[in-house]
Amino acid sequence: MFQDMDQPTVNPQILAERAREALWREDFASQALGMVVSEIAPGQATLTMTVRRDMLNGFGICHGGLLMTFADTAMAFASNSYNEAAVAINLSADFLASSYLGDCLTAKACERARTKRTGLYDVTVTNQRGETLTLLRGRVHRTPGKFLSE
Amino acid sequence: MFQDMDQPTVNPQILAERAREALWREDFASQALGMVVSEIAPGQATLTMTVRRDMLNGFGICHGGLLMTFADTAMAFASNSYNEAAVAINLSADFLASSYLGDCLTAKACERARTKRTGLYDVTVTNQRGETLTLLRGRVHRTPGKFLSE
Amino acid sequence: MFQDMDQPTVNPQILAERAREALWREDFASQALGMVVSEIAPGQATLTMTVRRDMLNGFGICHGGLLMTFADTAMAFASNSYNEAAVAINLSADFLASSYLGDCLTAKACERARTKRTGLYDVTVTNQRGETLTLLRGRVHRTPGKFLSE
Amino acid sequence: MFQDMDQPTVNPQILAERAREALWREDFASQALGMVVSEIAPGQATLTMTVRRDMLNGFGICHGGLLMTFADTAMAFASNSYNEAAVAINLSADFLASSYLGDCLTAKACERARTKRTGLYDVTVTNQRGETLTLLRGRVHRTPGKFLSE
Repeated sequence: MFQDMDQPTVNPQILAERAREALWREDFASQALGMVVSEIAPGQATLTMTVRRDMLNGFGICHGGLLMTFADTAMAFASNSYNEAAVAINLSADFLASSYLGDCLTAKACERARTKRTGLYDVTVTNQRGETLTLLRGRVHRTPGKFLSE
Repeated sequence: MFQDMDQPTVNPQILAERAREALWREDFASQALGMVVSEIAPGQATLTMTVRRDMLNGFGICHGGLLMTFADTAMAFASNSYNEAAVAINLSADFLASSYLGDCLTAKACERARTKRTGLYDVTVTNQRGETLTLLRGRVHRTPGKFLSE
Repeated sequence: MFQDMDQPTVNPQILAERAREALWREDFASQALGMVVSEIAPGQATLTMTVRRDMLNGFGICHGGLLMTFADTAMAFASNSYNEAAVAINLSADFLASSYLGDCLTAKACERARTKRTGLYDVTVTNQRGETLTLLRGRVHRTPGKFLSE
Repeated sequence: MFQDMDQPTVNPQILAERAREALWREDFASQALGMVVSEIAPGQATLTMTVRRDMLNGFGICHGGLLMTFADTAMAFASNSYNEAAVAINLSADFLASSYLGDCLTAKACERARTKRTGLYDVTVTNQRGETLTLLRGRVHRTPGKFLSE
Protein backbone atom coordinates (compact mmCIF):
# COMPACT_ATOMS: atom_id res chain seq x y z
CA MET A 1 0.00 0.00 0.00
CA PHE A 2 3.08 2.24 0.25
CA GLN A 3 1.88 4.56 3.00
CA ASP A 4 3.95 6.80 5.19
CA MET A 5 2.74 5.70 8.64
CA ASP A 6 4.05 8.84 10.31
CA GLN A 7 1.81 11.03 8.20
CA PRO A 8 -1.41 9.07 8.23
CA THR A 9 -3.65 9.63 5.26
CA VAL A 10 -6.61 8.42 7.28
CA ASN A 11 -8.69 10.75 9.44
CA PRO A 12 -8.31 9.84 13.16
CA GLN A 13 -12.07 9.51 13.63
CA ILE A 14 -12.41 7.19 10.65
CA LEU A 15 -9.45 5.18 11.92
CA ALA A 16 -11.14 4.86 15.33
CA GLU A 17 -14.32 3.61 13.70
CA ARG A 18 -12.46 1.08 11.60
CA ALA A 19 -10.55 -0.11 14.67
CA ARG A 20 -13.87 -0.58 16.49
CA GLU A 21 -15.21 -2.73 13.66
CA ALA A 22 -12.10 -4.89 13.51
CA LEU A 23 -11.98 -5.36 17.28
CA TRP A 24 -15.69 -6.01 17.62
CA ARG A 25 -15.87 -8.67 14.93
CA GLU A 26 -14.05 -11.22 17.08
CA ASP A 27 -14.84 -9.94 20.57
CA PHE A 28 -17.11 -12.89 21.30
CA ALA A 29 -17.08 -12.21 25.05
CA SER A 30 -18.47 -8.68 24.76
CA GLN A 31 -20.97 -9.85 22.15
CA ALA A 32 -22.17 -12.68 24.40
CA LEU A 33 -22.78 -10.17 27.19
CA GLY A 34 -24.96 -8.05 24.91
CA MET A 35 -22.71 -4.98 24.94
CA VAL A 36 -23.11 -2.25 22.32
CA VAL A 37 -20.31 0.19 21.41
CA SER A 38 -22.46 3.27 20.98
CA GLU A 39 -19.75 5.92 20.57
CA ILE A 40 -16.11 5.86 19.56
CA ALA A 41 -13.53 8.60 19.11
CA PRO A 42 -9.73 8.74 19.42
CA GLY A 43 -9.04 7.74 23.03
CA GLN A 44 -12.71 7.53 23.99
CA ALA A 45 -15.51 4.98 23.90
CA THR A 46 -19.05 4.68 25.29
CA LEU A 47 -20.80 1.33 25.66
CA THR A 48 -24.17 0.13 26.90
CA MET A 49 -25.23 -3.20 28.46
CA THR A 50 -28.42 -4.43 30.13
CA VAL A 51 -28.18 -6.54 33.30
CA ARG A 52 -29.55 -10.01 32.54
CA ARG A 53 -30.49 -12.86 34.86
CA ASP A 54 -27.28 -14.73 33.95
CA MET A 55 -25.25 -11.73 35.18
CA LEU A 56 -26.50 -11.90 38.76
CA ASN A 57 -24.39 -13.24 41.64
CA GLY A 58 -25.45 -15.09 44.79
CA PHE A 59 -26.77 -11.87 46.35
CA GLY A 60 -29.10 -11.15 43.45
CA ILE A 61 -27.10 -8.16 42.20
CA CYS A 62 -24.99 -7.80 39.05
CA HIS A 63 -21.69 -9.70 39.49
CA GLY A 64 -18.89 -7.20 40.16
CA GLY A 65 -16.62 -9.06 37.77
CA LEU A 66 -19.08 -8.46 34.93
CA LEU A 67 -19.20 -4.74 35.74
CA MET A 68 -15.41 -4.81 35.40
CA THR A 69 -15.68 -6.80 32.17
CA PHE A 70 -18.02 -4.13 30.84
CA ALA A 71 -15.64 -1.34 31.91
CA ASP A 72 -12.63 -3.27 30.58
CA THR A 73 -14.25 -3.58 27.14
CA ALA A 74 -14.86 0.18 27.14
CA MET A 75 -11.17 0.71 27.92
CA ALA A 76 -10.18 -1.74 25.18
CA PHE A 77 -12.14 0.18 22.54
CA ALA A 78 -10.85 3.56 23.74
CA SER A 79 -7.22 2.41 23.90
CA ASN A 80 -7.25 0.60 20.55
CA SER A 81 -8.81 3.54 18.69
CA TYR A 82 -5.43 4.61 17.28
CA ASN A 83 -4.90 1.35 15.42
CA GLU A 84 -2.05 0.30 17.68
CA ALA A 85 -2.61 -2.84 19.70
CA ALA A 86 -3.18 -2.05 23.40
CA VAL A 87 -3.62 -4.75 26.06
CA ALA A 88 -4.54 -4.18 29.73
CA ILE A 89 -1.77 -4.87 32.23
CA ASN A 90 -3.39 -3.48 35.38
CA LEU A 91 -6.92 -2.62 36.45
CA SER A 92 -8.29 -1.18 39.65
CA ALA A 93 -12.01 -0.95 40.33
CA ASP A 94 -14.04 0.70 43.08
CA PHE A 95 -17.63 -0.34 43.60
CA LEU A 96 -19.93 2.43 44.79
CA ALA A 97 -23.44 1.06 44.29
CA SER A 98 -25.14 -2.17 43.21
CA SER A 99 -27.04 -2.82 39.99
CA TYR A 100 -30.06 -5.04 39.45
CA LEU A 101 -31.83 -7.16 36.86
CA GLY A 102 -32.95 -5.03 33.94
CA ASP A 103 -30.73 -2.04 34.70
CA CYS A 104 -29.41 -0.29 31.58
CA LEU A 105 -25.75 0.45 32.17
CA THR A 106 -23.43 2.86 30.40
CA ALA A 107 -19.62 2.73 30.47
CA LYS A 108 -17.65 5.79 29.40
CA ALA A 109 -13.88 5.42 28.92
CA CYS A 110 -11.60 8.48 28.77
CA GLU A 111 -7.88 8.66 28.21
CA ARG A 112 -5.88 10.24 31.02
CA ALA A 113 -2.41 9.75 29.55
CA ARG A 114 -0.72 8.10 26.61
CA THR A 115 2.93 7.50 25.87
CA LYS A 116 4.59 5.39 23.21
CA ARG A 117 4.46 2.33 25.47
CA THR A 118 1.52 2.74 27.84
CA GLY A 119 -1.85 4.41 28.22
CA LEU A 120 -3.96 5.20 31.27
CA TYR A 121 -7.77 5.21 31.16
CA ASP A 122 -10.61 6.11 33.50
CA VAL A 123 -13.94 4.37 33.03
CA THR A 124 -17.19 5.35 34.75
CA VAL A 125 -20.11 2.91 34.84
CA THR A 126 -23.53 4.46 35.48
CA ASN A 127 -27.10 3.16 35.51
CA GLN A 128 -30.26 4.51 33.78
CA ARG A 129 -30.69 7.11 36.54
CA GLY A 130 -27.15 8.43 36.07
CA GLU A 131 -25.95 6.98 39.38
CA THR A 132 -22.29 6.00 39.38
CA LEU A 133 -21.87 2.28 40.10
CA THR A 134 -18.21 1.60 39.43
CA LEU A 135 -15.05 3.59 38.78
CA LEU A 136 -12.29 1.74 36.99
CA ARG A 137 -8.77 2.89 36.24
CA GLY A 138 -6.61 0.80 33.98
CA ARG A 139 -3.27 0.81 32.28
CA VAL A 140 -2.60 -0.71 28.89
CA HIS A 141 0.64 -1.79 27.31
CA ARG A 142 0.89 -0.50 23.76
CA THR A 143 2.76 -2.51 21.16
CA PRO A 144 4.09 -0.69 18.14
CA GLY A 145 2.39 -2.95 15.57
CA LYS A 146 -0.74 -1.71 13.82
CA PHE A 147 -3.61 -4.16 13.93
CA LEU A 148 -5.47 -2.76 10.93
CA SER A 149 -3.93 -2.41 7.48
CA GLU A 150 -4.54 1.27 6.65
CA MET B 1 -33.93 -21.02 67.08
CA PHE B 2 -32.41 -19.61 70.26
CA GLN B 3 -28.73 -19.98 69.41
CA ASP B 4 -25.84 -18.16 70.96
CA MET B 5 -24.18 -16.73 67.87
CA ASP B 6 -20.92 -16.04 69.67
CA GLN B 7 -20.42 -19.72 70.45
CA PRO B 8 -21.43 -21.33 67.20
CA THR B 9 -22.66 -24.87 67.44
CA VAL B 10 -21.68 -25.48 63.83
CA ASN B 11 -18.19 -26.61 62.81
CA PRO B 12 -16.45 -23.84 60.74
CA GLN B 13 -15.75 -26.21 57.84
CA ILE B 14 -19.36 -27.37 57.70
CA LEU B 15 -20.49 -23.75 57.89
CA ALA B 16 -18.17 -22.89 54.95
CA GLU B 17 -19.65 -25.72 52.90
CA ARG B 18 -23.19 -24.68 53.66
CA ALA B 19 -22.35 -21.06 52.78
CA ARG B 20 -20.95 -22.26 49.45
CA GLU B 21 -24.16 -24.10 48.65
CA ALA B 22 -26.37 -21.15 49.53
CA LEU B 23 -24.23 -18.72 47.55
CA TRP B 24 -23.86 -21.01 44.54
CA ARG B 25 -27.56 -21.76 44.16
CA GLU B 26 -28.31 -18.26 42.85
CA ASP B 27 -24.93 -17.27 41.42
CA PHE B 28 -26.24 -17.46 37.87
CA ALA B 29 -23.27 -15.48 36.50
CA SER B 30 -20.65 -17.93 37.75
CA GLN B 31 -22.81 -20.87 36.67
CA ALA B 32 -23.20 -19.42 33.17
CA LEU B 33 -19.41 -19.15 32.88
CA GLY B 34 -19.00 -22.83 33.77
CA MET B 35 -17.12 -22.27 37.01
CA VAL B 36 -16.77 -25.04 39.58
CA VAL B 37 -16.07 -24.40 43.28
CA SER B 38 -13.73 -27.33 43.86
CA GLU B 39 -12.52 -26.53 47.38
CA ILE B 40 -13.83 -24.43 50.24
CA ALA B 41 -12.56 -23.78 53.74
CA PRO B 42 -12.89 -20.87 56.20
CA GLY B 43 -11.32 -17.90 54.34
CA GLN B 44 -10.24 -19.96 51.34
CA ALA B 45 -11.70 -21.15 48.04
CA THR B 46 -10.43 -22.84 44.88
CA LEU B 47 -12.34 -22.70 41.59
CA THR B 48 -11.84 -24.02 38.07
CA MET B 49 -13.05 -22.70 34.71
CA THR B 50 -12.33 -23.63 31.09
CA VAL B 51 -11.81 -20.86 28.51
CA ARG B 52 -14.63 -21.08 25.96
CA ARG B 53 -15.01 -19.38 22.59
CA ASP B 54 -17.53 -16.91 24.05
CA MET B 55 -14.87 -15.77 26.54
CA LEU B 56 -12.40 -14.53 23.91
CA ASN B 57 -11.84 -10.85 23.17
CA GLY B 58 -10.94 -9.13 19.91
CA PHE B 59 -7.33 -10.34 20.13
CA GLY B 60 -8.34 -14.01 20.40
CA ILE B 61 -7.31 -14.32 24.06
CA CYS B 62 -9.47 -14.73 27.15
CA HIS B 63 -11.14 -11.38 28.03
CA GLY B 64 -9.32 -9.84 31.01
CA GLY B 65 -12.63 -8.91 32.57
CA LEU B 66 -13.67 -12.56 32.64
CA LEU B 67 -10.39 -13.51 34.33
CA MET B 68 -11.29 -10.92 36.96
CA THR B 69 -14.84 -12.27 37.17
CA PHE B 70 -13.37 -15.72 37.80
CA ALA B 71 -11.02 -14.35 40.48
CA ASP B 72 -13.81 -12.24 41.98
CA THR B 73 -16.03 -15.28 42.38
CA ALA B 74 -13.18 -17.09 44.16
CA MET B 75 -12.90 -14.13 46.53
CA ALA B 76 -16.67 -14.12 47.07
CA PHE B 77 -16.69 -17.77 48.15
CA ALA B 78 -13.64 -17.33 50.39
CA SER B 79 -14.97 -14.17 52.04
CA ASN B 80 -18.50 -15.50 52.56
CA SER B 81 -17.32 -18.76 54.12
CA TYR B 82 -18.04 -17.49 57.65
CA ASN B 83 -21.71 -17.01 56.98
CA GLU B 84 -21.49 -13.25 57.20
CA ALA B 85 -22.36 -11.35 54.05
CA ALA B 86 -19.24 -9.91 52.36
CA VAL B 87 -19.38 -7.73 49.24
CA ALA B 88 -16.38 -6.48 47.21
CA ILE B 89 -15.71 -2.75 47.45
CA ASN B 90 -12.33 -2.60 45.69
CA LEU B 91 -10.40 -4.88 43.35
CA SER B 92 -7.01 -4.54 41.76
CA ALA B 93 -5.77 -6.96 39.11
CA ASP B 94 -2.42 -7.43 37.41
CA PHE B 95 -2.24 -9.38 34.17
CA LEU B 96 0.96 -11.36 33.70
CA ALA B 97 0.22 -13.73 30.82
CA SER B 98 -2.57 -14.44 28.34
CA SER B 99 -4.87 -17.47 28.26
CA TYR B 100 -6.35 -19.21 25.23
CA LEU B 101 -9.32 -21.24 24.04
CA GLY B 102 -9.51 -24.52 25.94
CA ASP B 103 -7.18 -23.52 28.78
CA CYS B 104 -8.17 -24.99 32.15
CA LEU B 105 -7.86 -22.24 34.72
CA THR B 106 -7.65 -22.42 38.49
CA ALA B 107 -8.33 -19.54 40.91
CA LYS B 108 -7.14 -19.82 44.50
CA ALA B 109 -8.35 -17.21 47.00
CA CYS B 110 -6.58 -16.72 50.36
CA GLU B 111 -7.45 -14.39 53.18
CA ARG B 112 -4.77 -11.85 54.08
CA ALA B 113 -6.66 -9.98 56.80
CA ARG B 114 -10.10 -9.88 58.36
CA THR B 115 -11.64 -7.43 60.77
CA LYS B 116 -15.22 -7.00 61.90
CA ARG B 117 -15.96 -4.69 58.97
CA THR B 118 -13.59 -5.60 56.13
CA GLY B 119 -11.54 -8.44 54.70
CA LEU B 120 -8.59 -8.50 52.31
CA TYR B 121 -8.03 -11.37 49.85
CA ASP B 122 -5.35 -12.41 47.38
CA VAL B 123 -6.38 -14.49 44.39
CA THR B 124 -3.98 -16.21 41.99
CA VAL B 125 -5.22 -17.43 38.61
CA THR B 126 -3.09 -20.12 36.93
CA ASN B 127 -3.43 -22.27 33.81
CA GLN B 128 -3.07 -26.04 33.34
CA ARG B 129 0.74 -25.70 33.24
CA GLY B 130 0.81 -23.87 36.56
CA GLU B 131 1.73 -20.54 34.95
CA THR B 132 0.41 -17.48 36.79
CA LEU B 133 -1.91 -15.43 34.57
CA THR B 134 -3.47 -12.92 36.91
CA LEU B 135 -2.96 -11.69 40.47
CA LEU B 136 -5.97 -10.04 42.07
CA ARG B 137 -6.20 -8.32 45.42
CA GLY B 138 -9.57 -7.31 46.72
CA ARG B 139 -11.25 -5.85 49.73
CA VAL B 140 -14.72 -6.77 50.91
CA HIS B 141 -17.11 -4.94 53.17
CA ARG B 142 -18.55 -7.28 55.79
CA THR B 143 -22.04 -6.71 57.10
CA PRO B 144 -22.93 -8.17 60.47
CA GLY B 145 -25.99 -10.07 59.25
CA LYS B 146 -25.71 -13.82 58.74
CA PHE B 147 -26.97 -14.99 55.36
CA LEU B 148 -27.61 -18.59 56.39
CA SER B 149 -29.90 -19.56 59.22
CA GLU B 150 -27.67 -21.80 61.37
CA MET C 1 -22.84 22.37 74.21
CA PHE C 2 -26.28 20.95 73.49
CA GLN C 3 -26.18 21.11 69.68
CA ASP C 4 -28.35 19.22 67.26
CA MET C 5 -25.63 17.58 65.16
CA ASP C 6 -28.02 16.79 62.32
CA GLN C 7 -28.74 20.46 61.77
CA PRO C 8 -25.30 21.95 62.12
CA THR C 9 -25.18 25.54 63.18
CA VAL C 10 -21.77 25.92 61.60
CA ASN C 11 -21.34 26.84 57.95
CA PRO C 12 -19.77 23.89 56.01
CA GLN C 13 -16.94 26.08 54.65
CA ILE C 14 -16.09 27.38 58.12
CA LEU C 15 -16.21 23.83 59.44
CA ALA C 16 -13.79 22.72 56.67
CA GLU C 17 -11.38 25.52 57.61
CA ARG C 18 -11.51 24.65 61.28
CA ALA C 19 -10.94 20.97 60.47
CA ARG C 20 -7.89 21.96 58.41
CA GLU C 21 -6.44 23.90 61.33
CA ALA C 22 -7.01 21.07 63.79
CA LEU C 23 -5.55 18.46 61.47
CA TRP C 24 -2.58 20.59 60.44
CA ARG C 25 -1.49 21.47 63.96
CA GLU C 26 -0.20 17.96 64.63
CA ASP C 27 0.54 16.75 61.10
CA PHE C 28 4.27 16.81 61.72
CA ALA C 29 4.98 14.66 58.66
CA SER C 30 3.36 17.05 56.19
CA GLN C 31 4.93 20.03 57.97
CA ALA C 32 8.39 18.42 57.77
CA LEU C 33 7.96 17.98 54.01
CA GLY C 34 7.15 21.69 53.60
CA MET C 35 3.59 21.21 52.38
CA VAL C 36 1.13 24.09 52.37
CA VAL C 37 -2.66 23.59 52.39
CA SER C 38 -3.55 26.45 50.06
CA GLU C 39 -7.27 25.77 49.56
CA ILE C 40 -9.91 23.87 51.48
CA ALA C 41 -13.62 23.32 50.90
CA PRO C 42 -16.08 20.56 51.82
CA GLY C 43 -14.67 17.44 50.10
CA GLN C 44 -11.83 19.31 48.38
CA ALA C 45 -8.28 20.40 49.14
CA THR C 46 -5.35 21.87 47.23
CA LEU C 47 -1.77 21.67 48.50
CA THR C 48 1.65 22.79 47.30
CA MET C 49 5.13 21.35 47.94
CA THR C 50 8.57 22.07 46.51
CA VAL C 51 10.89 19.16 45.67
CA ARG C 52 13.94 19.37 47.97
CA ARG C 53 17.25 17.53 47.79
CA ASP C 54 16.19 15.25 50.66
CA MET C 55 13.20 14.12 48.57
CA LEU C 56 15.28 12.64 45.72
CA ASN C 57 15.75 8.92 45.19
CA GLY C 58 18.73 7.01 43.79
CA PHE C 59 17.86 8.08 40.24
CA GLY C 60 17.93 11.79 41.10
CA ILE C 61 14.17 12.23 40.75
CA CYS C 62 11.56 12.88 43.43
CA HIS C 63 10.86 9.66 45.39
CA GLY C 64 7.54 8.18 44.22
CA GLY C 65 6.59 7.46 47.81
CA LEU C 66 6.85 11.16 48.66
CA LEU C 67 4.63 12.06 45.71
CA MET C 68 2.11 9.63 47.21
CA THR C 69 2.63 11.14 50.66
CA PHE C 70 1.86 14.54 49.17
CA ALA C 71 -1.27 13.21 47.42
CA ASP C 72 -2.30 11.29 50.54
CA THR C 73 -2.15 14.45 52.65
CA ALA C 74 -4.35 16.22 50.09
CA MET C 75 -6.85 13.37 50.40
CA ALA C 76 -6.68 13.54 54.20
CA PHE C 77 -7.59 17.23 54.23
CA ALA C 78 -10.38 16.77 51.66
CA SER C 79 -11.88 13.76 53.44
CA ASN C 80 -11.69 15.25 56.93
CA SER C 81 -13.30 18.53 55.90
CA TYR C 82 -16.69 17.47 57.29
CA ASN C 83 -15.38 17.11 60.82
CA GLU C 84 -15.78 13.35 60.83
CA ALA C 85 -12.58 11.36 61.20
CA ALA C 86 -11.57 9.69 57.90
CA VAL C 87 -8.56 7.38 57.57
CA ALA C 88 -7.18 5.90 54.32
CA ILE C 89 -7.70 2.17 53.89
CA ASN C 90 -6.60 1.79 50.25
CA LEU C 91 -4.56 3.87 47.82
CA SER C 92 -3.65 3.31 44.20
CA ALA C 93 -1.19 5.55 42.39
CA ASP C 94 -0.13 5.79 38.76
CA PHE C 95 3.09 7.59 37.89
CA LEU C 96 3.04 9.41 34.56
CA ALA C 97 6.09 11.68 34.64
CA SER C 98 9.09 12.38 36.90
CA SER C 99 9.73 15.48 38.97
CA TYR C 100 13.04 17.14 39.79
CA LEU C 101 14.84 19.23 42.38
CA GLY C 102 13.13 22.60 42.76
CA ASP C 103 9.88 21.65 41.04
CA CYS C 104 6.81 23.32 42.57
CA LEU C 105 4.12 20.68 42.86
CA THR C 106 0.38 21.03 43.34
CA ALA C 107 -1.96 18.31 44.60
CA LYS C 108 -5.71 18.70 44.07
CA ALA C 109 -8.03 16.27 45.85
CA CYS C 110 -11.68 15.87 44.77
CA GLU C 111 -14.38 13.71 46.25
CA ARG C 112 -15.88 11.12 43.91
CA ALA C 113 -18.26 9.46 46.37
CA ARG C 114 -19.15 9.57 50.04
CA THR C 115 -21.32 7.31 52.12
CA LYS C 116 -21.79 7.09 55.86
CA ARG C 117 -18.86 4.67 56.16
CA THR C 118 -16.48 5.35 53.26
CA GLY C 119 -15.35 8.02 50.86
CA LEU C 120 -13.54 7.84 47.50
CA TYR C 121 -11.12 10.56 46.36
CA ASP C 122 -9.15 11.37 43.22
CA VAL C 123 -5.95 13.35 43.58
CA THR C 124 -3.98 14.86 40.71
CA VAL C 125 -0.36 15.96 41.23
CA THR C 126 0.98 18.47 38.71
CA ASN C 127 4.20 20.47 38.35
CA GLN C 128 4.73 24.19 37.73
CA ARG C 129 4.11 23.70 33.99
CA GLY C 130 0.76 22.04 34.62
CA GLU C 131 2.05 18.61 33.58
CA THR C 132 0.36 15.70 35.38
CA LEU C 133 2.90 13.64 37.34
CA THR C 134 0.78 11.30 39.43
CA LEU C 135 -2.85 10.24 39.64
CA LEU C 136 -3.93 8.79 42.97
CA ARG C 137 -7.25 7.24 43.90
CA GLY C 138 -7.93 6.42 47.51
CA ARG C 139 -10.64 5.18 49.77
CA VAL C 140 -11.10 6.31 53.35
CA HIS C 141 -12.96 4.70 56.20
CA ARG C 142 -15.16 7.22 57.99
CA THR C 143 -15.83 6.86 61.68
CA PRO C 144 -18.91 8.51 63.10
CA GLY C 145 -17.06 10.49 65.78
CA LYS C 146 -16.50 14.18 65.24
CA PHE C 147 -12.89 15.24 65.78
CA LEU C 148 -13.63 18.90 66.41
CA SER C 149 -15.94 20.12 69.11
CA GLU C 150 -18.35 22.36 67.19
CA MET D 1 35.30 -3.47 28.96
CA PHE D 2 34.19 -5.84 26.21
CA GLN D 3 31.89 -8.04 28.25
CA ASP D 4 29.24 -10.39 26.98
CA MET D 5 26.25 -9.10 28.89
CA ASP D 6 24.22 -12.25 28.26
CA GLN D 7 26.73 -14.37 30.14
CA PRO D 8 27.48 -12.19 33.13
CA THR D 9 30.85 -12.70 34.71
CA VAL D 10 29.54 -11.29 37.98
CA ASN D 11 27.76 -13.43 40.59
CA PRO D 12 24.05 -12.35 40.87
CA GLN D 13 24.32 -11.84 44.64
CA ILE D 14 27.42 -9.67 44.31
CA LEU D 15 25.69 -7.72 41.54
CA ALA D 16 22.68 -7.18 43.82
CA GLU D 17 24.92 -5.87 46.59
CA ARG D 18 26.74 -3.52 44.24
CA ALA D 19 23.42 -2.27 42.88
CA ARG D 20 22.28 -1.57 46.44
CA GLU D 21 25.37 0.50 47.13
CA ALA D 22 25.02 2.51 43.95
CA LEU D 23 21.32 3.15 44.51
CA TRP D 24 21.72 3.97 48.20
CA ARG D 25 24.51 6.50 47.75
CA GLU D 26 22.15 9.09 46.24
CA ASP D 27 18.82 8.01 47.71
CA PHE D 28 18.65 11.09 49.93
CA ALA D 29 14.93 10.59 50.62
CA SER D 30 15.33 7.10 52.12
CA GLN D 31 18.42 8.25 54.03
CA ALA D 32 16.53 11.23 55.47
CA LEU D 33 13.81 8.89 56.72
CA GLY D 34 16.38 6.75 58.55
CA MET D 35 15.82 3.60 56.50
CA VAL D 36 18.35 0.76 56.53
CA VAL D 37 18.62 -1.82 53.75
CA SER D 38 19.33 -4.84 55.93
CA GLU D 39 19.12 -7.61 53.32
CA ILE D 40 19.43 -7.75 49.55
CA ALA D 41 19.28 -10.62 47.06
CA PRO D 42 18.24 -10.90 43.41
CA GLY D 43 14.59 -9.76 43.35
CA GLN D 44 14.37 -9.36 47.12
CA ALA D 45 15.09 -6.70 49.73
CA THR D 46 14.40 -6.17 53.44
CA LEU D 47 14.50 -2.75 55.07
CA THR D 48 13.96 -1.34 58.55
CA MET D 49 12.75 2.10 59.70
CA THR D 50 11.75 3.55 63.09
CA VAL D 51 8.68 5.79 63.33
CA ARG D 52 9.83 9.28 64.36
CA ARG D 53 7.83 12.26 65.57
CA ASP D 54 8.20 13.95 62.16
CA MET D 55 6.50 10.94 60.54
CA LEU D 56 3.21 11.35 62.42
CA ASN D 57 0.06 12.72 60.81
CA GLY D 58 -2.77 14.76 62.34
CA PHE D 59 -4.19 11.69 64.09
CA GLY D 60 -0.93 10.92 65.88
CA ILE D 61 -0.20 7.79 63.82
CA CYS D 62 2.49 7.21 61.20
CA HIS D 63 1.52 8.96 57.94
CA GLY D 64 0.23 6.38 55.44
CA GLY D 65 2.23 8.03 52.70
CA LEU D 66 5.46 7.41 54.60
CA LEU D 67 4.53 3.74 55.06
CA MET D 68 4.18 3.63 51.28
CA THR D 69 7.46 5.47 50.85
CA PHE D 70 9.11 2.84 53.02
CA ALA D 71 7.49 0.00 51.02
CA ASP D 72 8.32 1.74 47.74
CA THR D 73 12.00 1.95 48.67
CA ALA D 74 11.98 -1.78 49.45
CA MET D 75 10.51 -2.42 46.01
CA ALA D 76 13.09 -0.15 44.40
CA PHE D 77 15.98 -2.11 45.93
CA ALA D 78 14.43 -5.48 45.04
CA SER D 79 13.63 -4.47 41.47
CA ASN D 80 16.99 -2.83 40.79
CA SER D 81 18.99 -5.78 42.10
CA TYR D 82 19.71 -7.06 38.58
CA ASN D 83 21.54 -3.92 37.56
CA GLU D 84 18.86 -2.88 35.13
CA ALA D 85 17.10 0.39 35.89
CA ALA D 86 13.54 -0.21 37.18
CA VAL D 87 11.13 2.63 37.98
CA ALA D 88 7.68 2.28 39.58
CA ILE D 89 4.73 2.97 37.29
CA ASN D 90 1.88 1.81 39.54
CA LEU D 91 1.46 1.14 43.24
CA SER D 92 -1.48 -0.08 45.25
CA ALA D 93 -1.46 -0.13 49.04
CA ASP D 94 -3.84 -1.55 51.61
CA PHE D 95 -3.64 -0.34 55.19
CA LEU D 96 -4.50 -2.95 57.80
CA ALA D 97 -3.30 -1.47 61.09
CA SER D 98 -1.80 1.78 62.39
CA SER D 99 1.75 2.35 63.63
CA TYR D 100 2.93 4.66 66.37
CA LEU D 101 5.88 6.74 67.54
CA GLY D 102 8.88 4.50 68.20
CA ASP D 103 7.59 1.47 66.32
CA CYS D 104 10.33 -0.48 64.53
CA LEU D 105 9.06 -1.35 61.08
CA THR D 106 10.28 -3.94 58.59
CA ALA D 107 9.49 -3.96 54.87
CA LYS D 108 10.06 -7.15 52.88
CA ALA D 109 9.84 -6.96 49.08
CA CYS D 110 9.44 -10.12 46.96
CA GLU D 111 9.28 -10.49 43.21
CA ARG D 112 6.08 -11.99 41.84
CA ALA D 113 6.89 -11.72 38.13
CA ARG D 114 9.52 -10.29 35.85
CA THR D 115 9.61 -9.87 32.11
CA LYS D 116 11.99 -7.96 29.89
CA ARG D 117 9.92 -4.79 30.28
CA THR D 118 8.13 -4.96 33.62
CA GLY D 119 8.31 -6.49 37.08
CA LEU D 120 5.68 -7.03 39.76
CA TYR D 121 6.50 -6.89 43.48
CA ASP D 122 4.70 -7.57 46.75
CA VAL D 123 5.86 -5.70 49.84
CA THR D 124 4.74 -6.47 53.40
CA VAL D 125 5.30 -3.91 56.17
CA THR D 126 5.24 -5.28 59.72
CA ASN D 127 5.94 -3.84 63.17
CA GLN D 128 8.16 -5.14 66.00
CA ARG D 129 5.42 -7.58 67.07
CA GLY D 130 5.17 -9.08 63.59
CA GLU D 131 1.77 -7.51 62.94
CA THR D 132 1.11 -6.67 59.30
CA LEU D 133 0.47 -2.96 58.83
CA THR D 134 0.48 -2.46 55.08
CA LEU D 135 0.45 -4.61 51.96
CA LEU D 136 1.77 -2.97 48.84
CA ARG D 137 1.79 -4.29 45.29
CA GLY D 138 3.70 -2.42 42.65
CA ARG D 139 4.73 -2.65 39.06
CA VAL D 140 8.00 -1.30 37.68
CA HIS D 141 9.01 -0.43 34.18
CA ARG D 142 12.38 -1.90 33.33
CA THR D 143 14.66 -0.10 30.92
CA PRO D 144 17.33 -2.09 29.14
CA GLY D 145 20.23 0.12 30.22
CA LYS D 146 22.47 -1.11 33.03
CA PHE D 147 23.01 1.46 35.75
CA LEU D 148 26.24 -0.03 37.06
CA SER D 149 29.31 -0.58 34.91
CA GLU D 150 30.10 -4.27 35.52
